Amino acid sequence: MNIIPVTKDLSLKRTIDQGTADQRQAVSEILQSVRSNGDEAVRQYTKQFDHVDLQDTLVTEAELEAAYASVTEDMLAIIREAIENIQDFHQRQVQQTWMTTKEDGTILGQKVTTLDAAGVYVPGGRAAYPSSILMNVIPAQVAGVKRIVMTSPPQQDGKLSDIVLVTAHELGVEEIHKIGGAQAIGALAYGTETMKPVDKIVGPGNIFVALAKQLVFGTVDIDMIAGPSEVAVLADETGNPSYIAADMLSQAEHDPMSSAVLVTDDRTLAEAVSREVTEQLQTLPKKEIAEASINDFGAIYLAESFEEAIDAINELAAEHLEIHAAHPWDVLPKIRHAGAIFLGEYSSEPVGDYFAGPNHVLPTNGTARFSSPLNVEDFTKKSSIISYSKQALEANGKKIAAFARLEDLEAHARAVEKRLEADNG
Amino acid sequence: MNIIPVTKDLSLKRTIDQGTADQRQAVSEILQSVRSNGDEAVRQYTKQFDHVDLQDTLVTEAELEAAYASVTEDMLAIIREAIENIQDFHQRQVQQTWMTTKEDGTILGQKVTTLDAAGVYVPGGRAAYPSSILMNVIPAQVAGVKRIVMTSPPQQDGKLSDIVLVTAHELGVEEIHKIGGAQAIGALAYGTETMKPVDKIVGPGNIFVALAKQLVFGTVDIDMIAGPSEVAVLADETGNPSYIAADMLSQAEHDPMSSAVLVTDDRTLAEAVSREVTEQLQTLPKKEIAEASINDFGAIYLAESFEEAIDAINELAAEHLEIHAAHPWDVLPKIRHAGAIFLGEYSSEPVGDYFAGPNHVLPTNGTARFSSPLNVEDFTKKSSIISYSKQALEANGKKIAAFARLEDLEAHARAVEKRLEADNG
Repeated sequence: MNIIPVTKDLSLKRTIDQGTADQRQAVSEILQSVRSNGDEAVRQYTKQFDHVDLQDTLVTEAELEAAYASVTEDMLAIIREAIENIQDFHQRQVQQTWMTTKEDGTILGQKVTTLDAAGVYVPGGRAAYPSSILMNVIPAQVAGVKRIVMTSPPQQDGKLSDIVLVTAHELGVEEIHKIGGAQAIGALAYGTETMKPVDKIVGPGNIFVALAKQLVFGTVDIDMIAGPSEVAVLADETGNPSYIAADMLSQAEHDPMSSAVLVTDDRTLAEAVSREVTEQLQTLPKKEIAEASINDFGAIYLAESFEEAIDAINELAAEHLEIHAAHPWDVLPKIRHAGAIFLGEYSSEPVGDYFAGPNHVLPTNGTARFSSPLNVEDFTKKSSIISYSKQALEANGKKIAAFARLEDLEAHARAVEKRLEADNG
Repeated sequence: MNIIPVTKDLSLKRTIDQGTADQRQAVSEILQSVRSNGDEAVRQYTKQFDHVDLQDTLVTEAELEAAYASVTEDMLAIIREAIENIQDFHQRQVQQTWMTTKEDGTILGQKVTTLDAAGVYVPGGRAAYPSSILMNVIPAQVAGVKRIVMTSPPQQDGKLSDIVLVTAHELGVEEIHKIGGAQAIGALAYGTETMKPVDKIVGPGNIFVALAKQLVFGTVDIDMIAGPSEVAVLADETGNPSYIAADMLSQAEHDPMSSAVLVTDDRTLAEAVSREVTEQLQTLPKKEIAEASINDFGAIYLAESFEEAIDAINELAAEHLEIHAAHPWDVLPKIRHAGAIFLGEYSSEPVGDYFAGPNHVLPTNGTARFSSPLNVEDFTKKSSIISYSKQALEANGKKIAAFARLEDLEAHARAVEKRLEADNG
């Protein structure tokens, strides 16, 4: 890898695939058709795109049980421990309804309510990561969402992969439909004869799924459209080049569009990481993908000081940030923008992908400047509470009416004054 | 008003104006031009659309001071009290960074950080409500956003309206640009020579502003695109028909597309409210607007029981909900979906528009099913914190590597195992 000075524009921003006009048109038609024709439309698209004709899309108890045959007890134990860790972390995000009272009888507050129903999209094929199911379902469950619907495209045998079924079953997800693509998003958003609509759709998918989610946004809520994965490493001279290179490559193996970047003020470390990346790359099964990612979106930036390196890290606003420094906790307060922050050399990024507890659905493409990891709060919403007593309205009613008239809203003023008149009468 | 039974589909959903293809094309070109040509493009569009040629768009201290001449001391005092109330409420929304530790040395947490910069769009002309400035700026300030940029289209005299300037100055907003429309959104999102870009844009605007916000979403964050205003009133036989009608009309005067709905289980009340609406309507200055709203989007629903009425209210998921009942607090726990909930007959909806403290930027068009009022949290974001000790990685590293291999991500597994090898070596 080339070692280059920290430059003015460090942005990781890559163009997110917005689809072609043809793709957008096709997705729009699919959604319209599912909205009008429900299950029958979904069935036709499943025949067309997934090459299976399913009378009934709901996964049966028998399918769930059969899936367990191919998952070892050891793996099951690991999945269960991961579930516990992720639940434990997310339970700490639960927000409370609160209230404040005044002696004049005013009560103001904020009521937290759970969404009624959430849909989780699970991609088919190799992209069906069990960790993705955990990370999308658990926050919804911890929030208290009563109805969780999972959809995933059927394999050619008309089933879902064993690991998807086992993971869903371990979580207690009961409503699993073997449908995928834009037609699944349409079914989740508008409902069909056999599936009631949901209020929010989360989970990754291909370009058709992403476009469909954008189009149904407003009818339902959606999570963010994720870009390719990223890691930025901030390191001082104490950084271990072998660990840093391995972590950069673990990000690079995801996708040729993934990005792995090191920012350091130590030239010796920069050179050592560069050598390690080249060396470790050679034996990776996904060498081709990782190499493309490193060549096109990887970089080693050399800063003139550690402070400059921190500034660059904030400019990058990366999805994953690793801090390899003598005193990582001294650095933390200076980090303004990052999806997840990994401190110290034992906090390898994969620790957060499956197991530690925090969510792995994180803001990409610089959006950590204004976005957060997927969160229990994403499955709740708030309502303001306003209760004015007679005394409070008498004390403030004239002011409120005056403000309304300042905005030329006479009916607003009268609505308040009507109560004041009544009290005087 | 007609009194009709509660029906299956109560949805308030109205079609939100998505703009014509020509409008979308025009907005896309404006954004592109501002992105490429910066201030000069903004200046040309301001000449074209606002009919003024401004060399310098920044509001001066002299303009701010001059604006005070037209605002009375009384009105200023009311605005200042409203600011205090709104600040007080929003301060209670501030979230804390938290952390959890385990004895094996693991530290996990969630760090709350403020957005660096926020843009607040203020519409021109009659739509320049001072309350809207308060409600959009104060949450950002309470969150701790250091840089707040306000933009608003200039009047024909090249200035902003006095009340906009006074309100902004009272809040301490210093960077106010006299630019509007899609060109203002472009400047906020991409920056120009004289304006650095922001991270989030909030505030209402016309169709060009709404389309521009949709197009820059992703580059920056935006608030929701608001639909026409709504109120739903839930009332039992103790409801005061005169108050209820006045509150419904205060919503109806906003816009012919606004919606005011009563749901009650008491026929006598339903009939009385219907009469009151007709009567009070006659003397309203905005009679024409309110009448159109009541005719097209108003309704009085008669339920067979109070429980059925509550179900209907949850189905509506209205922006504003008023509860006029003998025991409104007994009803509150049953309300699942509403932007703001007003309890009791003295809690007229206009109380919440300017003065009480909660935000008046609320989810419309049924989106209260999954969205919240504008909130301090909207101007912050979270980063996950993950710190694994050597001991924690030794205890869990093999499980993490196994999970990585289950997902066919060998480089992930190796990144973790590299640390384990080193420990054994």
